[in-house]
Amino acid sequence: MHEPGTRLGRDRRTLDRRSGTVTLIRTQGVTAPLGFRAAGIAAGIKVSGKPDLALVFNEGPEYAAAGVFTRNKVKAAPVLWSQQVLTGGRLRAVILNSGGANACTGPGGFQDAHATAEELAKALSNWGTETGAGEIAVCSTGLIGDRLPMDKLLPGVTAIVHEMAGGLSGGAEAAQAIMTTDTVSKQAAVHNNGWNVGGMAKGAGMLAPSLATMLVVLTTDLVATAEQLDLALRNATRLTFDRLDVDGSCSTNDTVLLMASGASELTASQDELNAAVLAVCDDLAAQLMADAEGVTKQVTITVTGAVNEDEALTAARAVARDSLVKCAFFGSDPNWGRVLAAMGIAPITLEQDRVSVSFNGSPVCERGMGAPGAREVDLSGPEIHVVADLGLGDGTASVRTTDLSYAYVEENSAYSS
Amino acid sequence: MHEPGTRLGRDRRTLDRRSGTVTLIRTQGVTAPLGFRAAGIAAGIKVSGKPDLALVFNEGPEYAAAGVFTRNKVKAAPVLWSQQVLTGGRLRAVILNSGGANACTGPGGFQDAHATAEELAKALSNWGTETGAGEIAVCSTGLIGDRLPMDKLLPGVTAIVHEMAGGLSGGAEAAQAIMTTDTVSKQAAVHNNGWNVGGMAKGAGMLAPSLATMLVVLTTDLVATAEQLDLALRNATRLTFDRLDVDGSCSTNDTVLLMASGASELTASQDELNAAVLAVCDDLAAQLMADAEGVTKQVTITVTGAVNEDEALTAARAVARDSLVKCAFFGSDPNWGRVLAAMGIAPITLEQDRVSVSFNGSPVCERGMGAPGAREVDLSGPEIHVVADLGLGDGTASVRTTDLSYAYVEENSAYSS
Repeated sequence: MHEPGTRLGRDRRTLDRRSGTVTLIRTQGVTAPLGFRAAGIAAGIKVSGKPDLALVFNEGPEYAAAGVFTRNKVKAAPVLWSQQVLTGGRLRAVILNSGGANACTGPGGFQDAHATAEELAKALSNWGTETGAGEIAVCSTGLIGDRLPMDKLLPGVTAIVHEMAGGLSGGAEAAQAIMTTDTVSKQAAVHNNGWNVGGMAKGAGMLAPSLATMLVVLTTDLVATAEQLDLALRNATRLTFDRLDVDGSCSTNDTVLLMASGASELTASQDELNAAVLAVCDDLAAQLMADAEGVTKQVTITVTGAVNEDEALTAARAVARDSLVKCAFFGSDPNWGRVLAAMGIAPITLEQDRVSVSFNGSPVCERGMGAPGAREVDLSGPEIHVVADLGLGDGTASVRTTDLSYAYVEENSAYSS
Repeated sequence: MHEPGTRLGRDRRTLDRRSGTVTLIRTQGVTAPLGFRAAGIAAGIKVSGKPDLALVFNEGPEYAAAGVFTRNKVKAAPVLWSQQVLTGGRLRAVILNSGGANACTGPGGFQDAHATAEELAKALSNWGTETGAGEIAVCSTGLIGDRLPMDKLLPGVTAIVHEMAGGLSGGAEAAQAIMTTDTVSKQAAVHNNGWNVGGMAKGAGMLAPSLATMLVVLTTDLVATAEQLDLALRNATRLTFDRLDVDGSCSTNDTVLLMASGASELTASQDELNAAVLAVCDDLAAQLMADAEGVTKQVTITVTGAVNEDEALTAARAVARDSLVKCAFFGSDPNWGRVLAAMGIAPITLEQDRVSVSFNGSPVCERGMGAPGAREVDLSGPEIHVVADLGLGDGTASVRTTDLSYAYVEENSAYSS
């Protein structure tokens, strides 16, 4: 067996950084906005005894919410449950477990998701907040195909309600408890003239599908309708998580939720809300890429000059998913021919003698032919930016991805049982 | 660095085997049919000094031919040349080089392909067979983006004409000279009531794209029209090479050619021709899979019960291309949840509670849920057969693929320069 490489996530700075006009804070997450409590505990679902149950609770006074779910036709029980709950546009709480996906578990698995929501509703009501199961979303992540250990999960649901903390520590604990093969927890928050958006994330697409999925919970203390939240969430996920493509896979459990407490008593324009939610999602997506399984290179594929944005995105995704391109980048090999070959099989308009490609700003292919010095471009650093200009129109899109390393194979070939 | 695993190709038997009703002979190739000569030499195109130039020459009396080429929109110069030549439905010879793909080389690269055909036409004419460049196909395989060393290739073209051997040795030498990262040469032939079909192959899709492509040359001594050959070739490639999917890639240079000499003076029905060409292609495809880069498992994905054959093929291909399924198989891990997740993102009709899956005949998923003992199924052998029944209709299709191993990453991450 081989030593898995150190993921970039272990090295990345957790310092705050500016993204555009907003200041992002990576030490704060779902409890950065007013009106939210959170907690993370070890309920015994994971055999390792690590934290495996998280709760995000909206204290109100408002409860508008929106959700985006996996497009996989094979959907986990908690996804089916939460989609149904979200049709009401309202959430009091989200309960999330790691240690089991509750996917491909049949009607029994759906009953488990329902029972989890009922148990939390009862515990919250006993705690003094009258809550119905229909106001509670459930998220799960872990191995597909096994039933959850409900004898551990249900007592954990009662216990976690008593652990809920206001302030920042609760959010940090929740972000820890949803980790599976993540090496670092992922939080981000923005503060914006008296109102805030915060979030936490784990995994990334099907990065570690036997143990993982992408779960994201976002919160804001704005006064906002479910429709405003839905618009902001769809805009942000389209430009961030949907364009983070590590292996082209899409989990049975992927879920992104946004809840508004209204606790700031402020409203914002749709554009302001969109910008803040986008900023948090964009930073969480960058953190997911940096901590992707087996990653040794953070790769951004930008396609310009496509006939439209959809074709630019299709081309960028084709390159991002190409195993041969990804192996070349692992080897720091400026093998631009593979980029052309990958785009050439994408269902897009392409004229090979109009295509130009650069790696980290150095031209490697001009009008379909090798540029001078193309084979000597240095890709030994941890970041690779590919820009492919199709020379046809003004369609542009970027996709984030990673290389394909020994460590990726290592982490994804271990026995599931 | 890791030791690349031994490919299955190194171990496989080269013995003849029966496939259906025809006897396949793996020690014979393009010169098994009457009326063909072939040769393979080292022209100095490869720095290693290994054989790198092959010729297959049709002595006639007939010259009907058909070709199937890559669907990649980025096409190598020799593909553009040969497609143009094949519009005439007639071929006297095919000249093939390894050591350079002549792809993404612009108008100069096309001139090189043209000059190669002209040089061969001149040499064949001098040798006593009046030939035009428009009757000669050109195939190349190697790194994308560099011009061919014409100062070595052109003298080689003249030299190889004088090396042409009848009998079986010429075909074997040609099969050697087209190898790139192949570890064994690949030939197959069938004998059928006085007429024969033979073939040679190298690579497989974009298995080793910095050095490779799939090139296949097939020959027959039947009397057949270009239209009959075209029908037989399209039928065979659709069911064999098109369903050999190692990494979803399709090279800039992929070419499959079929030439008929008429030397047997026999004709056959379209069905008989189809069956013989299919048998040779099927065996060559099996040899390509066994020798794929980094392969430690030969995997067949069969989807049944789809609404039609197209959807069955789409689903099988989605599983065959899924990096996570392939990593699991490398680890002999019966992780059936990944098979469901991969089919769930394919653009097909799927109802998760109707899906059943078996690995090597053992049920692992029944009606969307884990089967008893699913986690204990033994996949430690070199062959894995996945059968996924969608439970919807009678559409069925199979795709051959491989696992995703350290050795695949190794072979594809080495520096190209």
